[in-house]
Amino acid sequence: MPETPGIGERPAPWRKTRVVGKTLPRIDAYERVSGAALYPSDVAPSNMLHGAILRCPHPHARVIRVDTARARRMPGVHAVIDGSTPGADLDWTYAGTGTTFQTKIFDTVCRFEGEAVAAVAAKNPYQTSDALRAIDVTYDVLPFTSDERTALAPSSPPVHSGGNQVGKTDTYSRGDADLGFAEADVVLEEHYRTACEIHTPLERHGCVAEWKGDRLTLWESTQGVYAVQKTIADILGMPLSKVRVIGHYMGGGFGSKLQPGKYTVIAALLARVTGCPVRIFLSREETFLAAGNRPPTNMRLKAGVKKDGTLTAFDFTCTGSGGAYPAGGALVVDWLIRDLYACPNVRTTADDVYINAGPARAFRAPGHPQGAWALEQMMDALAAAIGMDPVAFRLINIPNVSQARKGHPPYGTPGFAECLRRGAEVFGWNEARKQSGGTGPIRRGVGMAGGLWSSGDGRPPSTIILKLYADGSVNLNMGASDIGTGTKTVMAMVAAEELGIRPQAVQIEHADTGTTQFATPSGGSKTVPTEAPAVRAAAVSVKQQLLEMAARNLKTEPADLRYTPGVVVSRSDPSKRIAVDRISGLRMAGVVVGVGYRDPNPPNRVINPFAAHFCEVAVDMRTGEVRILRFLAAHDSGRVMNRLTYDNQVFGGITMGIGLAMTESRLLDGNQTGKMVNGNWHDYKIPTALDIPADMVSLPIEIPDDEANTTGAKGLGEPVTIPTAPAVANAIYNATGLRVAETPIDPLRLCGLLAAQRKEA
Amino acid sequence: MPETPGIGERPAPWRKTRVVGKTLPRIDAYERVSGAALYPSDVAPSNMLHGAILRCPHPHARVIRVDTARARRMPGVHAVIDGSTPGADLDWTYAGTGTTFQTKIFDTVCRFEGEAVAAVAAKNPYQTSDALRAIDVTYDVLPFTSDERTALAPSSPPVHSGGNQVGKTDTYSRGDADLGFAEADVVLEEHYRTACEIHTPLERHGCVAEWKGDRLTLWESTQGVYAVQKTIADILGMPLSKVRVIGHYMGGGFGSKLQPGKYTVIAALLARVTGCPVRIFLSREETFLAAGNRPPTNMRLKAGVKKDGTLTAFDFTCTGSGGAYPAGGALVVDWLIRDLYACPNVRTTADDVYINAGPARAFRAPGHPQGAWALEQMMDALAAAIGMDPVAFRLINIPNVSQARKGHPPYGTPGFAECLRRGAEVFGWNEARKQSGGTGPIRRGVGMAGGLWSSGDGRPPSTIILKLYADGSVNLNMGASDIGTGTKTVMAMVAAEELGIRPQAVQIEHADTGTTQFATPSGGSKTVPTEAPAVRAAAVSVKQQLLEMAARNLKTEPADLRYTPGVVVSRSDPSKRIAVDRISGLRMAGVVVGVGYRDPNPPNRVINPFAAHFCEVAVDMRTGEVRILRFLAAHDSGRVMNRLTYDNQVFGGITMGIGLAMTESRLLDGNQTGKMVNGNWHDYKIPTALDIPADMVSLPIEIPDDEANTTGAKGLGEPVTIPTAPAVANAIYNATGLRVAETPIDPLRLCGLLAAQRKEA
Repeated sequence: MPETPGIGERPAPWRKTRVVGKTLPRIDAYERVSGAALYPSDVAPSNMLHGAILRCPHPHARVIRVDTARARRMPGVHAVIDGSTPGADLDWTYAGTGTTFQTKIFDTVCRFEGEAVAAVAAKNPYQTSDALRAIDVTYDVLPFTSDERTALAPSSPPVHSGGNQVGKTDTYSRGDADLGFAEADVVLEEHYRTACEIHTPLERHGCVAEWKGDRLTLWESTQGVYAVQKTIADILGMPLSKVRVIGHYMGGGFGSKLQPGKYTVIAALLARVTGCPVRIFLSREETFLAAGNRPPTNMRLKAGVKKDGTLTAFDFTCTGSGGAYPAGGALVVDWLIRDLYACPNVRTTADDVYINAGPARAFRAPGHPQGAWALEQMMDALAAAIGMDPVAFRLINIPNVSQARKGHPPYGTPGFAECLRRGAEVFGWNEARKQSGGTGPIRRGVGMAGGLWSSGDGRPPSTIILKLYADGSVNLNMGASDIGTGTKTVMAMVAAEELGIRPQAVQIEHADTGTTQFATPSGGSKTVPTEAPAVRAAAVSVKQQLLEMAARNLKTEPADLRYTPGVVVSRSDPSKRIAVDRISGLRMAGVVVGVGYRDPNPPNRVINPFAAHFCEVAVDMRTGEVRILRFLAAHDSGRVMNRLTYDNQVFGGITMGIGLAMTESRLLDGNQTGKMVNGNWHDYKIPTALDIPADMVSLPIEIPDDEANTTGAKGLGEPVTIPTAPAVANAIYNATGLRVAETPIDPLRLCGLLAAQRKEA
Repeated sequence: MPETPGIGERPAPWRKTRVVGKTLPRIDAYERVSGAALYPSDVAPSNMLHGAILRCPHPHARVIRVDTARARRMPGVHAVIDGSTPGADLDWTYAGTGTTFQTKIFDTVCRFEGEAVAAVAAKNPYQTSDALRAIDVTYDVLPFTSDERTALAPSSPPVHSGGNQVGKTDTYSRGDADLGFAEADVVLEEHYRTACEIHTPLERHGCVAEWKGDRLTLWESTQGVYAVQKTIADILGMPLSKVRVIGHYMGGGFGSKLQPGKYTVIAALLARVTGCPVRIFLSREETFLAAGNRPPTNMRLKAGVKKDGTLTAFDFTCTGSGGAYPAGGALVVDWLIRDLYACPNVRTTADDVYINAGPARAFRAPGHPQGAWALEQMMDALAAAIGMDPVAFRLINIPNVSQARKGHPPYGTPGFAECLRRGAEVFGWNEARKQSGGTGPIRRGVGMAGGLWSSGDGRPPSTIILKLYADGSVNLNMGASDIGTGTKTVMAMVAAEELGIRPQAVQIEHADTGTTQFATPSGGSKTVPTEAPAVRAAAVSVKQQLLEMAARNLKTEPADLRYTPGVVVSRSDPSKRIAVDRISGLRMAGVVVGVGYRDPNPPNRVINPFAAHFCEVAVDMRTGEVRILRFLAAHDSGRVMNRLTYDNQVFGGITMGIGLAMTESRLLDGNQTGKMVNGNWHDYKIPTALDIPADMVSLPIEIPDDEANTTGAKGLGEPVTIPTAPAVANAIYNATGLRVAETPIDPLRLCGLLAAQRKEA
């Protein structure tokens, strides 16, 4: 077993490992596949009622009257509540980025289709939906705005009083873009658009609420139990200690479960009114309307380059819409333009506008995939324009510092260059490019794109409590959620590594505000780099305590002792040893408790994950159908903690990126009703197994970074979906000579573009 | 709010309090009375099967054959197991005191009626009991021994090979007893007997066992979840971390729930075999046979006293029986004889013998009530013999040191004398004694007795984790069980006291090996004095961390700052302040975590609780019926933490003591079958509300002891039942002139003695 660092010493992050980095199945694999795992949607306390929410069918309407009399008399109905119910007149804040919108749980103005109007709790789900239908609501239907591209036109009805511009235009600039364009040999300009995508995790959004005395327990499908606790305690005016939120398992969260929903408050209200536990899980259709989305963006990018490949200027504008209550519709869409490539002159502006549609929520790498869609297609076009290989073109424009950050701090690793180089090599980029194009009906092409994630370093706070039993087994207490990424497994491996035991001997308690430690939500690709160093610190603390106690027992110094599972042995005299269950000390009685905290990151240094994706496609020139033949994803996310869950993340990210590129788009009926016309899994297309390549390669680029944190891990969850879509688009260009600037690249769109291309030719 | 001690400083235990000591209802009172509290016997995971155990109907038998074929085919039956089932051939250790008995879960020799032979799990309890009846067992019935008084006679069949003496005779001696008797003016000798009492807590013994993958969860009605974890992990050969034991609520435990039972292992086995959760709760009749008892004792006490009241010698012998697998049948029965009164010459011997009856378990103050039954009646008789008041006689014989302990360390408080003095005063002892006796058919009498509990100091280890939220509310994590005594409420009060908040803002998580801290079982009257100081230490730690962080934020020193709920304020400049949720520091993000440990007690010092009970009775000389008219219990148990739960404990202890004195006795059919003939709540009498006086007074004697621990609390649960029975017997003597040396003093016994008295007279 590797040595423990001395007391107070920081453990070396990149030492040789025994467990960490191996390919290990999840520690909860059996529970997950056998059905034993209890997801929030499985929770069913006795006497539980089924709650549901009546939602406004109009994109914009004023609620004049809610008549619940008939619904109340329906069989099985325990409660019907609306804004006029005493105690239900609660505030609700739609949290934007930098801005918030104070409304009511049941507001009299509904600004999007699917806004909550009333709610029911009944004995069974059928009685609940019957009662919902029996509520009679009188609406004053108002004119709506549903297209962000025309939202600022004077003819567009205002979503809120004061026009449809959200706050002020966000601007950024460095150098002199105009001068940059003047210096350029080639200047290109293009408009790009990404469609609005909907959050559709496998487990829908919802919770079960139960009161016991003055304590509320919520089993919520969430990425962060403490975030839910805070919001709900604030809204209900309760002490934080009296709101317990449990989220032991959850069926996927990509940003839309960072916070509770109105459903959480409504379930708590219905449970209080009825005296019974109440379950509300949204229907799939409700999640399409109200659970969050990735904002649509409309981008213009102008770029200048010299013949030798030197970038001279970027000029970028973006208009996005976060819906009726925007959470940053255009937020950080420009980050890659600012920061991915060395460019002295950059100017960006971003505008967010209101439309009468469901509020946006953070969506796997907010802004980054959209920005990459523009930037990485532009880079491909620039390379073509100056006759340079796209990989080579990128490699000569890689900065060593973060240009967008104050003081231009250096990056911890040269990860982007390595991703490009090694990725191209393993993918066989040069050979594949030689075989692309052709003249037949099926044309092959390869494309690539790069990216970075502007976070993913991990940071305080994190507190971990680790109990080491005398038999060497461990109980690990962590507040963070495992949102399906394998967090628990990685933490077990880190503890097992440090303590020299099997990961299977580590039992994890997590994601429960009542019984586990404070943690920030699992999001921002920071869970592993935040929690794992705290786990390690807790394990180190336990060992140190044991050595100190054992030193007193053995009448020697702690430095003379070595911990091995179950036994502490003297280094100088191996016959001097004591079994862990024989060690006596004030705080020891078969169990030693260690507390570990996440240390801060080193100052003036940027710890970001980098990525490069490579893909090969076959395009049917007659039908516009695209088959993605293979994909390679090279990622510098620091140390690989578990190769199996690492690869799972990569493959999932590619799949989601293919959804952005190829299939996903919220469709609103802008003409007549303003309603969503594809709000279900039949009409809204997410990629299926048939849409993704069987040949997917995950290529970890591990560059030791001794200062990142004591485990060497960086975030992975979001980088894996950032360069995917433009890599596909660039491959289609490589196959067809066509630039598809707008998502999704469905056969209809591509067929149309191919027809126009043929016409031009 | 009182000041926080400086960093590293020990908080003063006896400062003025704001919350502690008040009369406060339990923090879980609503859950308990509304039925919302989930006791282990309420737990019902989906697909749960009902398990039950087939028990040997003979006190001594060899199992020849177990035929389960018919039972297996019965409807609803999922599993039938016995000693021949693969995986069920597990060891079971009957834990004695100083000795253990290695047997099997299903042993081939049954040494008591009720021993486990086989077990069934079926869909519903009726199918389970039908299947139990369908198991065909062939026994070789063996001769039995059922009376500890004759167990050593050569004619008594041996329970184990090697005779019925358990180990060696336990002896103690100081001074020279023979010399002491020679110096005495009066020497008395008497035989005393206490009957065997059965553990009958309101919630029966049992558990629900569930496997998820390789982890076993047990909801057990227990006094100590970690004790259950250890035993079960050992028997099943599992890592400790993989056995989770939960005991959030439990319906009473008086020593018999300090450890799991065979039922726990059997439930786990059945759950593993069937793949379903399995519930086993013993029937009331089963608990009478197999769940534990207070051993019967047969005592002889000889005492010498001078005319001036000086004790000169005690000579004591005791024979007890812990049943077939004794857990100290005569253990510490002699403690009070050794230690309660100043006496230079003491000699004691104690023998434990085997009989074919259920194993004894620790029973509220092991040995002490039995010893008090002898000693305190003898003290009463000695006082009468030398014509001295019983209170005055005791007062002149109180030692300041523990004579039975090595080095004669001093007691922390002069508590016994104060209990006697103040108790007599408030009871109106002198006046009441003047009115006792008489000549009519109903005679009144008063009696009293004293006692101490040889433990009750509390001690390490205890670990408490306290999370302070930004709004000042608190989550408190403790592994100890609240066995109905109000532990949770007291801990909430201690945290509230230190943090200046309401106890209602403290949420407690407890008694769960998965999610709460290590704790020793709740027993030995040590829970409050063990856990409360650790709670206080955790609260102090949280405050100190806040002050340190706030000092950096406010650019001042921690010593200049004062914590008040929600705000930290400068002492020198009260305008300098910072809200807790604004304090920033590495480990702070809305939650501060404090870890508190129990410090060791001061060396060479005895911290024991003391007690004196006073009672008044009316005896019907014609029928032998006794009415206990009133009771006063004076207790030095250190600081009163909550006056309501304190008094509850006192009243409960008196009730149990009345059970020993008046009603309880296990009856074995020694002649024919060796079986228990009153193993149910109809025939075995525990005191009901009609058997205890309405007039019960709890008189706390609070003597500040600054060194006991940082809360000043000492144990209360056991002292309250130690002097009760002899106080009643002494009152009966005072009324009738009759000494009743044997329990229970039921009307039949008393009537017989009164008849004999009349005959003599």
